[in-house]
Amino acid sequence: MFEKILANVESKNPLVHNITNYVTVNDCANIILASGGSPIMADDIKEVCDITSICSSLVINMGTLNERTIKSMIAAGKKANELNHPVIFDPVGAGASGLRNETAIKLLEEVKFSTIRGNISEIKFLATGGGNTYGVDACEADRVMEESLDSVISFAKSFSQKTGSVITITGAIDIVTDGNKTYIIRNGHPMMSKITGSGCMVTAVIGSYTGANPDNILDSAAASVCAMGLCGELAYKKLVEVDGGTNTFRMLLIDYMSKMNAEMLKAGAKIEIR
Amino acid sequence: MFEKILANVESKNPLVHNITNYVTVNDCANIILASGGSPIMADDIKEVCDITSICSSLVINMGTLNERTIKSMIAAGKKANELNHPVIFDPVGAGASGLRNETAIKLLEEVKFSTIRGNISEIKFLATGGGNTYGVDACEADRVMEESLDSVISFAKSFSQKTGSVITITGAIDIVTDGNKTYIIRNGHPMMSKITGSGCMVTAVIGSYTGANPDNILDSAAASVCAMGLCGELAYKKLVEVDGGTNTFRMLLIDYMSKMNAEMLKAGAKIEIR
Amino acid sequence: MFEKILANVESKNPLVHNITNYVTVNDCANIILASGGSPIMADDIKEVCDITSICSSLVINMGTLNERTIKSMIAAGKKANELNHPVIFDPVGAGASGLRNETAIKLLEEVKFSTIRGNISEIKFLATGGGNTYGVDACEADRVMEESLDSVISFAKSFSQKTGSVITITGAIDIVTDGNKTYIIRNGHPMMSKITGSGCMVTAVIGSYTGANPDNILDSAAASVCAMGLCGELAYKKLVEVDGGTNTFRMLLIDYMSKMNAEMLKAGAKIEIR
Repeated sequence: MFEKILANVESKNPLVHNITNYVTVNDCANIILASGGSPIMADDIKEVCDITSICSSLVINMGTLNERTIKSMIAAGKKANELNHPVIFDPVGAGASGLRNETAIKLLEEVKFSTIRGNISEIKFLATGGGNTYGVDACEADRVMEESLDSVISFAKSFSQKTGSVITITGAIDIVTDGNKTYIIRNGHPMMSKITGSGCMVTAVIGSYTGANPDNILDSAAASVCAMGLCGELAYKKLVEVDGGTNTFRMLLIDYMSKMNAEMLKAGAKIEIR
Repeated sequence: MFEKILANVESKNPLVHNITNYVTVNDCANIILASGGSPIMADDIKEVCDITSICSSLVINMGTLNERTIKSMIAAGKKANELNHPVIFDPVGAGASGLRNETAIKLLEEVKFSTIRGNISEIKFLATGGGNTYGVDACEADRVMEESLDSVISFAKSFSQKTGSVITITGAIDIVTDGNKTYIIRNGHPMMSKITGSGCMVTAVIGSYTGANPDNILDSAAASVCAMGLCGELAYKKLVEVDGGTNTFRMLLIDYMSKMNAEMLKAGAKIEIR
Repeated sequence: MFEKILANVESKNPLVHNITNYVTVNDCANIILASGGSPIMADDIKEVCDITSICSSLVINMGTLNERTIKSMIAAGKKANELNHPVIFDPVGAGASGLRNETAIKLLEEVKFSTIRGNISEIKFLATGGGNTYGVDACEADRVMEESLDSVISFAKSFSQKTGSVITITGAIDIVTDGNKTYIIRNGHPMMSKITGSGCMVTAVIGSYTGANPDNILDSAAASVCAMGLCGELAYKKLVEVDGGTNTFRMLLIDYMSKMNAEMLKAGAKIEIR
């Protein structure tokens, strides 16, 4: 599947509209470029419909919410739905505040998402309206381990069936499902949790890959998660050679995305279908 | 010309007020410091006049517009005009949305710009109120090539005469003109379009150089474009040595700006006068 | 003192709520992670009280103020006070505009700060309501030198006694005092002033260290300043080896924070008690 996904990104150079947070926005823009897309960030209600209309996909990330941008997210999401553009949702910190909770729920009601990507705590909150969140990171108790894998898969499949969205849960083990077919991905490196933006960047890459492959939403998400995880592995390997720290790791992560191709991805993907 | 421009930056350490976007703001601040200036970012209507009053120049970048900051841009621009401070305009994404179009036109009406810097699509939009834009990047059809160079030069000169601003069009070939004298600059590297912020950073450096050389607006813009392009070339050369990707390139670009001096610039500038 | 401070950060992994500027926010998030904490950025009035309630400390940084976030700063600060969470204040650019001045004064009136960290010009402004500021950097005339050290110490002690806050003045020589005990710190490197965010990052690390050591506010601030300064020294040493520029320096600075431990800090700290 990787050849087709990446070939389409390369030939189409999808324009990705991002309504996102101001913490990781630069990394998101750079990784979209590195992945073969073109980012455009625009969050004012007076322009989001115009902008999303000229784009191939829309990424909504609620990392730093405010009243002004929530309205823009809903308007842009509806417009993208109308135009049949893929819309990707990253419910950063869902569960951590009333505002995030209400906004996540409202977005799920008003916008049809192609893909929802979060950590297990965030996705659990969306599915159940409860659960625990430790800030913007997953709760210890929630971590996806081999022993909890089966139950998390069936949870993800049922939430996917309920929403009609591809559900992407990232963590030590990643799960991508359309409610029917499920990918289990074991790429990645623990150091990805020692930098800000690893999650946001996966979501941004999903925006890029899905923008170029709107008819293949599930595989686009899975390929993005594999690519990002593989970049993490390659970055860590290089990091050890240069004896660097977390910020060198962050740079290398984006570097490897700019070097990623279908052959590397095929050789390095640790992906299993269930 | 480079010696004088850079000597003034070094001796004056110009304070540059930026009303800019949240995508590339950190890179802009860092490249202003690297170029020898001091950045200050402030966009609230209640402080922009105070801030611009203590600065040497003002950079207005419309990368992520919102209603709140548009008012601040106009107020700060008028104040800077009143104080005779150079004002630099980067019409990011002009042509991509109604809001950007109206704002660009309104800014041109209300504020007198020393220099306007954009890609060819953005500048064409400003000049004609039409044209094509592909998000925040130039349209393929618009790229400045050797064969279209003469017509682009005469377009830029005429727009400069109309606005009284130095017009700076960056791309594969860069054009800097005050309507009379025109510089053609062939520095740079294609990888500059694979990172976000290359354009914003050139504009930021123009803010720094012009802030220290308010009586030499044309040469300040030309020197900035040469310096930035040369940094791109040097960064790419080093990148090949270290086998890096796009994010290492971005770091090296700012690194080289911090090492730039008049000798390097004189030796490396590919600049022609017409 | 370093062992205990760092051991608590490691074991508690403090969640740090930041209401901060959009220029250096990514660096602040990354250095909090590198220091052993977890950052969460949230500035909307509708969620800041929720967010601060689940955190260990709150950092208020007024680098890019606007009316919306000023209200959030006050609400979050009061809530954190109520919950007895440490609140750290970085009065970026105090003295540079009426809005910053009024906001700084209002924050001092409404919120009880555990620690206030700024350059000498900013702290002088807070203490006297006057003084000079050169943008967001300290005035030349204000630099803390050996000859002015004694008078700056007694100024800092008296301001600490007045406010009940630990006062942290960073510059060529750093001063950290609780009005009684004073640390003089001589770590650091001049290149730290050639990148944006050095000051904001120290404040962020104070948020992380103090969040894990709420009963040891003075030592937490001193350890943060030592750690950051030592990172600057190590980064510069490595920078010379790799022949890098300012942006490589910035990356290395965060890298070394991710490698910092009590042994390194004990060996490298240039700290004196008065």
